[in-house]
Amino acid sequence: MTNAVSGLPFDDIRSLLTEFPGPDLEAAAACRAREAQLTKPPGALGRLESLAEWLCAWQGRHPPSAERVVVAVFAGNHGVVAQGVSAYPPEVTRQMVANFQNDGAAVNQICKSFGLGLKVFELALEKPTRDITSDAALEEAECAATMAYGMEATEACDILCIGEMGIGNTTVAAALSLALFGGEAEDWVGPGTGVAGAALERKADAVRRAVEHHRPHLGDPLEVLRRLGGREIAAMTGAVLAARLQRIPVIIDGYVATAAAAVLKALRPDALDHCLAGHVSAEPAHRRLLAELGLTPVLDLGMRLGEGSGAAMAAGIVKAAADIHNGMATFQSAGVATKNV
Amino acid sequence: MTNAVSGLPFDDIRSLLTEFPGPDLEAAAACRAREAQLTKPPGALGRLESLAEWLCAWQGRHPPSAERVVVAVFAGNHGVVAQGVSAYPPEVTRQMVANFQNDGAAVNQICKSFGLGLKVFELALEKPTRDITSDAALEEAECAATMAYGMEATEACDILCIGEMGIGNTTVAAALSLALFGGEAEDWVGPGTGVAGAALERKADAVRRAVEHHRPHLGDPLEVLRRLGGREIAAMTGAVLAARLQRIPVIIDGYVATAAAAVLKALRPDALDHCLAGHVSAEPAHRRLLAELGLTPVLDLGMRLGEGSGAAMAAGIVKAAADIHNGMATFQSAGVATKNV
Repeated sequence: MTNAVSGLPFDDIRSLLTEFPGPDLEAAAACRAREAQLTKPPGALGRLESLAEWLCAWQGRHPPSAERVVVAVFAGNHGVVAQGVSAYPPEVTRQMVANFQNDGAAVNQICKSFGLGLKVFELALEKPTRDITSDAALEEAECAATMAYGMEATEACDILCIGEMGIGNTTVAAALSLALFGGEAEDWVGPGTGVAGAALERKADAVRRAVEHHRPHLGDPLEVLRRLGGREIAAMTGAVLAARLQRIPVIIDGYVATAAAAVLKALRPDALDHCLAGHVSAEPAHRRLLAELGLTPVLDLGMRLGEGSGAAMAAGIVKAAADIHNGMATFQSAGVATKNV
Repeated sequence: MTNAVSGLPFDDIRSLLTEFPGPDLEAAAACRAREAQLTKPPGALGRLESLAEWLCAWQGRHPPSAERVVVAVFAGNHGVVAQGVSAYPPEVTRQMVANFQNDGAAVNQICKSFGLGLKVFELALEKPTRDITSDAALEEAECAATMAYGMEATEACDILCIGEMGIGNTTVAAALSLALFGGEAEDWVGPGTGVAGAALERKADAVRRAVEHHRPHLGDPLEVLRRLGGREIAAMTGAVLAARLQRIPVIIDGYVATAAAAVLKALRPDALDHCLAGHVSAEPAHRRLLAELGLTPVLDLGMRLGEGSGAAMAAGIVKAAADIHNGMATFQSAGVATKNV
C-alpha cells in the first residue's frame, strides 16, 4: 500500500476499520421473536420485517428506534468540471446549498413529509478539488481531515441517510467505480444532471484519462478516494465509517453516495453490512455498482437527483417498518386466532 | 348480458359507468409547467413527478392535494372457506376488524406513520357469502347494494386507498381473475395467508370448480362479480367507481383489491385510469393481474398482508410526491442557475 508509513493520517482511518462491531445477534433474535407474535401471517410484511431486524442488529437494541432519522447532505466542488463534463455551471453547488438552507429543495420537502432531520455540510466550496485528469484530487491530510469532518454527521441520530450535492460529482463517482471495480469508462458514466452527445463522450474520456493517470497508485482504496474522489465523497466515506463504530444504521442515496461507501467495502468486505441502499437511481451505473456491492435497493422510482432525496424517501419506509414492528398488537393481546395447522 | 333487463340494480351501475370523467388535461399541464421550474434537473424526480401529474389530472386541480388521504378497509366473510382453502379460521375476519378498531394492526401503524386516515367497513360478517363452488356468492340486489355501500368510502378524502380483510378471499380473487382473464386455476392461485401442499391443491380445485359451475353466465363482468366475488370485493368495486365520478385518485392494495378493480376494467377499458397500483405483493398472481391491467406498481417490498397495507405504504410516497411538487422553490425564486446549454 502506498501510504503504509506509520503515523500518517490514513493509518488512523485504517485502525478504525479494525474496530468495526458486527451485528447484534441477540437484538436481531428478539426482533424475530416479537415479529412472530404480531397479528399477521408469518412473513406477510416482507421486506418491512427484514428492515426492522436490520435496524435491531445494527443499532444493537430491540425495539428498534427511528425517532431521530437524519439526512446529511455533503456539498463539494470539483476541478474536473474544467473538462466540460456537467450540464450545469459549478456555481450551482453553492446555490443549491443556499436552497437547502432556505427549505426550497426536494430533500427539504421529503424531510418535512416524513419528519426527518436535515444537516447540510458545506465543504470548502470556494476551493474545488484538483482536476483528477492530471492531479490527485486531495492531499492525504486534507482527505483524512475531510473524512473526520464527515464523521460529525452521526451526532444525535439513530438512523443516518447520506447524500450529496456537487456539480461534476457523477464524473468522480464513475472514476472511483472504474478504479475499484474495473470495466470500461463507459460502463460507469451516465447523463448525471443531463449531459448527452459530445458532453457525455467528454465525460467518459475524462474518467478514462483520470484512472489511467493515477493507475500506478490505485492498489489502496484510500488512495483511490484521495486521488479520484472529492471532498463530499471523502466526508460521506467518513460518515459511513463513523456510523458503523457508533451503531447507527445508514441509508445510502444514489450513485455518488454509493461510490463513497464502496471505498470502505474495498477496504473491508463486511464494511457496509450496516448500510441499506435506499433506492436505485436512473443513473444507469448505479444499478451496476449496487450489484458489485451486493446491495438490494428499497425503492426503484426512477429518481436521479442526489441531495439525499432517494435515501430520504427510503427513510420514510424504514420509519414505517419500525413503527409497525413497535406498535402492532400480538395475537395474544388482540385475541386473534392463530393458524389452523 | 344476463341482467340487461331495464330497472334492475346492475343497470344503475352500468349507467354510472357511462358518466366517467376523463383526465383534466389543463391541471396536468399546469403541473408540468411548474415541475419544469423547480430547482432540479428536468425529470430528476422520476416517478415522483408522474405521481404529482397523475394526482392533478384525476383530482382536476393544480396544485395537487394530499391533505386527506384515507385508507378504506373492507371486511367480508366467504362461504368458500368450507372447501378448506385458508390457513386461518373464518373467525379471524371479525377478530382482525376488532384489531383495526383497537389500533393494533399493521395498517393502523402505517396510517399513523404517514398521517393517513383509516375507515373500516364491516360487511355483514355474520352472513358469509354462499359457497362459490356451488352457488352464486350474492344476489344481484345484495351485490348492487354492497357496491353502493362501498361508494361511501369516498366521503371527505382527496386520495383513497382501498384494502380488505376476509379469510378465504384470495380464493375469490383467483376465481374472479380466472373468469375475467382466462388461463388455468393454478395461474391465479397462491399461498394467500400461508396454505401449501394439499390445501393449496384444494384451493386451486375450488377455484376451477367455481368457474366451471358459473361458466355459462360469465360474459358480463358484473355477473362475474356477483357470482364469484364477495361483499368486500363488491364494496371495493363500488368505491373505485365512486372515486372516479368524484375525481378522487385511488391507490389499490394487493391481489384481492386489484381483482375487485379488474371488474371495472372489464366493463370499460379506461375505467382504472384514475387508479395507481400501490405495490406488487408476494402473492404470485398479483404480478400477473397487474400486467393484465397495465398497472405498474409503486412499491415492490414482498408484502402480502392485505388490509390496505401496501396501498398505505404507497400513499406515503404519493404524499411526499405532492409535498415536493407543492413545496419546492423555483430556479427563479431560489436564484439557482439553469442548464449550461
